[in-house]
Amino acid sequence: MKNLTLSFILVFSMISIAALAQKKPNNHKIIFQFTNATDTLQQKAIINQLNNLTTHWPKAKYEVVIHSMGLPFVMSGKSKQIQAIKTLRDKGVRFVVCENTLKSQKVTKDQLIQEVEYVPVGIAEIVEKQEQGWSYIKGGF
Amino acid sequence: MKNLTLSFILVFSMISIAALAQKKPNNHKIIFQFTNATDTLQQKAIINQLNNLTTHWPKAKYEVVIHSMGLPFVMSGKSKQIQAIKTLRDKGVRFVVCENTLKSQKVTKDQLIQEVEYVPVGIAEIVEKQEQGWSYIKGGF
Amino acid sequence: MKNLTLSFILVFSMISIAALAQKKPNNHKIIFQFTNATDTLQQKAIINQLNNLTTHWPKAKYEVVIHSMGLPFVMSGKSKQIQAIKTLRDKGVRFVVCENTLKSQKVTKDQLIQEVEYVPVGIAEIVEKQEQGWSYIKGGF
Repeated sequence: MKNLTLSFILVFSMISIAALAQKKPNNHKIIFQFTNATDTLQQKAIINQLNNLTTHWPKAKYEVVIHSMGLPFVMSGKSKQIQAIKTLRDKGVRFVVCENTLKSQKVTKDQLIQEVEYVPVGIAEIVEKQEQGWSYIKGGF
Repeated sequence: MKNLTLSFILVFSMISIAALAQKKPNNHKIIFQFTNATDTLQQKAIINQLNNLTTHWPKAKYEVVIHSMGLPFVMSGKSKQIQAIKTLRDKGVRFVVCENTLKSQKVTKDQLIQEVEYVPVGIAEIVEKQEQGWSYIKGGF
Repeated sequence: MKNLTLSFILVFSMISIAALAQKKPNNHKIIFQFTNATDTLQQKAIINQLNNLTTHWPKAKYEVVIHSMGLPFVMSGKSKQIQAIKTLRDKGVRFVVCENTLKSQKVTKDQLIQEVEYVPVGIAEIVEKQEQGWSYIKGGF
């Protein structure tokens, strides 16, 4: 009976170890940081990067955190890539804007395109995703 | 007796697994890389980022590695953010300068503000922190 | 007999945990992203960074992924650092070019120096290396 309990704990133990060790190559998760949209080439660069990756890995998870000078990328009147963002959003790419950046640059949410979501602190979002095993990429160039 | 020993090892084993698996959400550790202080907007950007994060997560660990073109950020005669750096230092944010960068740019330590610390190779510091589970953020924009 | 089997599994279990927990300080692996070679100072900066690191950690693994605006760094007619790249290549540093970037910028492989290797999607390479435990560094400044 005691040995049965021990065996049970051991099996659970091995499963836990396996879960920690596995690399899950089919479940890529990528968190992008985009901080510089002042140059339209930068906007074009991150769109190219996302297009290439979503074609290469259609089932991966993608999130783009926009903060600092990245804001024009998602502003209705300034973005050069609204249609491309919509297409990527439809493929499951999430675009997430830092509310602290909005405050410090005196931009309101109604100036942004509707495809975005919000987080209080953009960098905190990137940190939490890294803690959860996402790969981090500085987007643009 | 044998089973008792086995049980003891098992309990230790489970604790080890638990320690490896836990996410420690209250213990964020963030290593910043700051490489471009030529623009005063860049200096302002990383200060904003650190202010926002330390407000959001007062108990997290923060370290900023300054190398390459980031040096003016911590030079007595050139930094536009000396007071802000002092305030952040008082909150526990560490500012760490790459000694290789000092050598290659012929800058001596007495030209830097006193709030900084030193490492031989800035990028090696960032790598070691990542190996120890810190999240990496490219600071500025 | 049962206890012997259990003991065997336990030992294997402990070894697995130890393998997962260890930090391997003598086995640093660093994946660089280089995206901006338009400025010759940027080319010089990443060469300095690689020279410093390979001197500091001669036995570490290094790979530099070149994509977006990083291409001139490895183009025969444009790079300012061909000799330095050759020297680093001889030390084991791998330089890897994104084929998607080649296509979108209409550059062919015979325009590049011979020291480079190729991957289909540069960012995917960086993500996979992070998943395998490599530290990620945005190169240049």
